[in-house]
Amino acid sequence: MPIKTNHPNKKTWMPVPANSDFPIQNIPFGVFLTRDDIITIGTRIGDHAIDLGALHQLGYFKDIPLTDDIFLQDTLNDFISDGKKTWRLVRNRISEIFDINNKDLKNNEEHKNIVLFTLDEIEMQLPVQIGDYTDFYSSKEHATNVGTMFRDPENALLPNWLHLPVGYHGRSSSIVPSGTPVRRPMGQTLPKGAEQPIFGPSKLVDFELEMAFITTDANVLGEPIPVEDAEDYIFGMVLFNDWSARDIQKWEYVPLGPFLAKNFASSISPWIVTLDALEPFRVQSPEQNPEPLPYLQQSGEKGFDIHLEASITPEGGEETRVSKSNFKYMYWTMAQQLAHHTINGCKINSGDMMGSGTISGPTPDTYGSMLELTWRGEKPIILKDGSTRKFIEDYDTVTLTAYCQKDNVRIGFGEVKTKLLPVFQPKKQ
Amino acid sequence: MPIKTNHPNKKTWMPVPANSDFPIQNIPFGVFLTRDDIITIGTRIGDHAIDLGALHQLGYFKDIPLTDDIFLQDTLNDFISDGKKTWRLVRNRISEIFDINNKDLKNNEEHKNIVLFTLDEIEMQLPVQIGDYTDFYSSKEHATNVGTMFRDPENALLPNWLHLPVGYHGRSSSIVPSGTPVRRPMGQTLPKGAEQPIFGPSKLVDFELEMAFITTDANVLGEPIPVEDAEDYIFGMVLFNDWSARDIQKWEYVPLGPFLAKNFASSISPWIVTLDALEPFRVQSPEQNPEPLPYLQQSGEKGFDIHLEASITPEGGEETRVSKSNFKYMYWTMAQQLAHHTINGCKINSGDMMGSGTISGPTPDTYGSMLELTWRGEKPIILKDGSTRKFIEDYDTVTLTAYCQKDNVRIGFGEVKTKLLPVFQPKKQ
Repeated sequence: MPIKTNHPNKKTWMPVPANSDFPIQNIPFGVFLTRDDIITIGTRIGDHAIDLGALHQLGYFKDIPLTDDIFLQDTLNDFISDGKKTWRLVRNRISEIFDINNKDLKNNEEHKNIVLFTLDEIEMQLPVQIGDYTDFYSSKEHATNVGTMFRDPENALLPNWLHLPVGYHGRSSSIVPSGTPVRRPMGQTLPKGAEQPIFGPSKLVDFELEMAFITTDANVLGEPIPVEDAEDYIFGMVLFNDWSARDIQKWEYVPLGPFLAKNFASSISPWIVTLDALEPFRVQSPEQNPEPLPYLQQSGEKGFDIHLEASITPEGGEETRVSKSNFKYMYWTMAQQLAHHTINGCKINSGDMMGSGTISGPTPDTYGSMLELTWRGEKPIILKDGSTRKFIEDYDTVTLTAYCQKDNVRIGFGEVKTKLLPVFQPKKQ
Repeated sequence: MPIKTNHPNKKTWMPVPANSDFPIQNIPFGVFLTRDDIITIGTRIGDHAIDLGALHQLGYFKDIPLTDDIFLQDTLNDFISDGKKTWRLVRNRISEIFDINNKDLKNNEEHKNIVLFTLDEIEMQLPVQIGDYTDFYSSKEHATNVGTMFRDPENALLPNWLHLPVGYHGRSSSIVPSGTPVRRPMGQTLPKGAEQPIFGPSKLVDFELEMAFITTDANVLGEPIPVEDAEDYIFGMVLFNDWSARDIQKWEYVPLGPFLAKNFASSISPWIVTLDALEPFRVQSPEQNPEPLPYLQQSGEKGFDIHLEASITPEGGEETRVSKSNFKYMYWTMAQQLAHHTINGCKINSGDMMGSGTISGPTPDTYGSMLELTWRGEKPIILKDGSTRKFIEDYDTVTLTAYCQKDNVRIGFGEVKTKLLPVFQPKKQ
């Protein structure tokens, strides 16, 4: 099943604003609540959401082997479970339906009224029920920065880092979609020089500029996925802000890793951009030295040229961009991450999510967290309103965006936008 | 709603073998496939499983507010979500139905034929869909043993250990019920003295003798659960074998914690024993010094006197008990674990699982892993057949059991029994 959606000259009869993240070449998948309070699976072109459940009921996907209710669900898990061939058939068909030369839906006002929504008529939901969520630590620049700050600049990378994509398990239950505010966490920290920990609000709440990929069912327990097959099990990608409380992390993380410093909240963008849509933006990933063990050796272009930005907007204030990075800096690729994750037979399900880890580039303006951008708070950032930030303050909104651009086609991810609320105050009893 | 199920003199008309783990006082919950290939929720008395879906359809739970299909499900998540009051109403009713003086079901052969199954007529399933799984590290003896072996006997416990229940996120997708064999994992390890890692089968596969508790929906994201309320959100407990590959762990675990060393498989016992059934077996938990921070301070008996055993059975050979521990040794209680887990607002869902960490007691015969029992392989264990074990060998079966005993009542957990298979061999192409 070839991809028929990516041609740069392809045009649609739908209105698409200049510089939209969602041209006819994108065709992402998401889940939304409609004006009629119905949950459905949909896609997006320009500034319109398209109800795929309704399109399917109206017969636009006939001849594609799909169950009747495949899009009338509150998560994409079952559709993702149908596999890559089905994803392509559906995206190719959507591309046809909205092609500038196809009048079937274009000239059917009744059908258009049923399936098209403006963005203010819908409310985006989490696109998948995330069974398990793993976070990697695959940006060499990020790992080097953190190692330099907290350990030893001469030996910033730990001995295993260049041999395997270091990762750990995160908490699925605290992942929320863009727009959901998150609370500053309470917790234990050890003040500098103190012998006893104290309890209180985290003082060092940070964002992490990441991307994440969503998998389909990939294997049975006990069987690895070879690195050369790994991408077949990746449905698509989202933006991912892995909120972190640096002071809690520092005290709790030995020897089992970050826990409460991370699991108070993580935020994702609601539209999953498929790997097929990203195909034209493949690039060579960074050279790996030493050469990895054979089960991690890949061929071809396994990196993706995705421009990333992070910004901070104070309450009622103006947005200031604080970082400009790129997914292509990732040392370990998604294919290597998934091959490594399953080399021991770990089971991968539909809807599992794997984060890249903070994506930092080579220069200070490309760092993907406040920890690195302000170098532990030593070099505060000045926002457009003149205020300074070492870390994120209450009521700040953090926005991550991402897009690819080539041959006048821009494929974007929209945004993940999250306001940080103050700590929870229990009601007086 | 009082607990009406625990009286030691309570008797049932069902046959219960001497020393059964499942007297009328237990009433655990599980999910099984029946002889008719139907999945249902059930309980167990003696050596019979009881189909609660069928009992409900026959009207035995009338007057209890339950949806019609609450027991006709393939997981307990929805029932657990109904909350503690409903669990008690249902267990109290089951206790009445099977009470020795109640003839309603006892004298109804037709109904008995529908609802009762012998154990060879059913196949136990995973009792819950585990959304998130967390593993703690709450046995002081275990943490001390590990710290002594791998770090410094003088400072075996890390500075945070006495101040908070250290824990980390595990992988839900690889949790299997008793009876499901698991495979020895492949992975990267760093041989002693080597500078480069090698790839191959783990040579140090170990069991971990743990218990785990299952939660109900407990909070909304951002709101902590106070320690004094925490037990209200614990549905019950299971036995838990947290399979571990010590050589993979040693190489991969800095700085983000164990990953592939753990997520190849974990095994649980299929019957969830409720916290209500364990009520008579409460004991004081170990004294905590230093006193924990206020959010972790508890009152009353929050420990449980649960006898634990681990054994190894070589293929075709005799079973050898290798450890005899007790859940009462746990330094941090389940209430403290749940309060700590949510102090930052982390969301807890119905069906989430939290492991205790390896439960080791004060003497070498009470250690809960081969790592400790053989002291890193320095003191191999001799099995009944004369063979020795430093770690677990291919085709060995590891069995964990647990029970409480008081006033001639024994409440048990059954077993979690798992055979270790050799590494996966890909088919030749």
